[in-house]
Amino acid sequence: MAKMLPKSVRRLIEELSRLPGIGPKSAQRLAIYLLHQPASRLKDLGEAVLGLKEGIVFCETCWNIAESNPCAVCVDEARDCRTICVVEEVLDVVALEKTRDFNGVYHVLHGVLSPIDGVGPDQLKIDALFERVRGGVDEVILATNPSLEGEATALYIQKELKGMDVRITRIARGLPVGGDLEYADEVTLSRAIKGRGEF
Amino acid sequence: MAKMLPKSVRRLIEELSRLPGIGPKSAQRLAIYLLHQPASRLKDLGEAVLGLKEGIVFCETCWNIAESNPCAVCVDEARDCRTICVVEEVLDVVALEKTRDFNGVYHVLHGVLSPIDGVGPDQLKIDALFERVRGGVDEVILATNPSLEGEATALYIQKELKGMDVRITRIARGLPVGGDLEYADEVTLSRAIKGRGEF
Repeated sequence: MAKMLPKSVRRLIEELSRLPGIGPKSAQRLAIYLLHQPASRLKDLGEAVLGLKEGIVFCETCWNIAESNPCAVCVDEARDCRTICVVEEVLDVVALEKTRDFNGVYHVLHGVLSPIDGVGPDQLKIDALFERVRGGVDEVILATNPSLEGEATALYIQKELKGMDVRITRIARGLPVGGDLEYADEVTLSRAIKGRGEF
Repeated sequence: MAKMLPKSVRRLIEELSRLPGIGPKSAQRLAIYLLHQPASRLKDLGEAVLGLKEGIVFCETCWNIAESNPCAVCVDEARDCRTICVVEEVLDVVALEKTRDFNGVYHVLHGVLSPIDGVGPDQLKIDALFERVRGGVDEVILATNPSLEGEATALYIQKELKGMDVRITRIARGLPVGGDLEYADEVTLSRAIKGRGEF
């Protein structure tokens, strides 16, 4: 930390560099950039940070963040509440909603199983999912990331749900649209072959 | 902007994505990250933003940001106030101070000449520099960036100072230490050859 800079600037640099993906140099640059902005701009940003949690609740059905409990998706009668799409994080819901191709409801786990980081089923909203399935559900779509932890989490849920009367599916893994077969990694390509569908 | 997210989250995403180097995706990720932090952490960051300009003044000698006017560097009697190092921005002072190799004083221009962006000498602290030189100075080190605008600004100042009784120098341009001659661009290499010194 540069001792040359005034205390208030150093303080902001310190806070900014604690954010993920922002190193000390970026934090410095951001702080100096903000210093050159009008006071109203600082007020907007500062108050947006301070007010972030205002009016936010967890929907106790799908565990997404929302302005009401249950959330707008869960109370929407136009949506098929017997099809649950299980995702890791809040932003995954945002990404899936953008496709406009899913008309069911969601279940946000808030993480993935990761024994190394001490994350077991109890740290996630997994029991809440089983509860929902027990209440009567047609299909559970496992849409965790196609990463090691995401696959392990999907596998764990699939095993636990096996005895119940519910269809369990996994989002397709294959070549990303616009991707190049030549540059795809082996595992993705292998998935794309195995998961091939009728033309 | 994802309509799915609560209003306070959307508001923060909007503010964050206005920052330089932070795109909409990074802003989303940062906002969700902050949402998972304790309230005290949000308070620290928010107040650091709101309080950024508190207690900050410009030193009316060197035009660096400081907690007092004149700043700690300008009033320091151990420093050679007859050697002025001219830099573009506040962070350049921080970088130079880290070297511990400069014992003179600074002059922050707060930008570079850039006709395209409508930045002329009047938008920079250039007149203030000439004033200082007229007051009696031994050496002016032009330490603007070795970019097109930085060079043009250095050239402009050098021309304006020519008539005055002051030594004008330019920071050396050449191979960065640890750099690789093979990968250096032609202009840098050409500068390194032209600026060679006795071994």
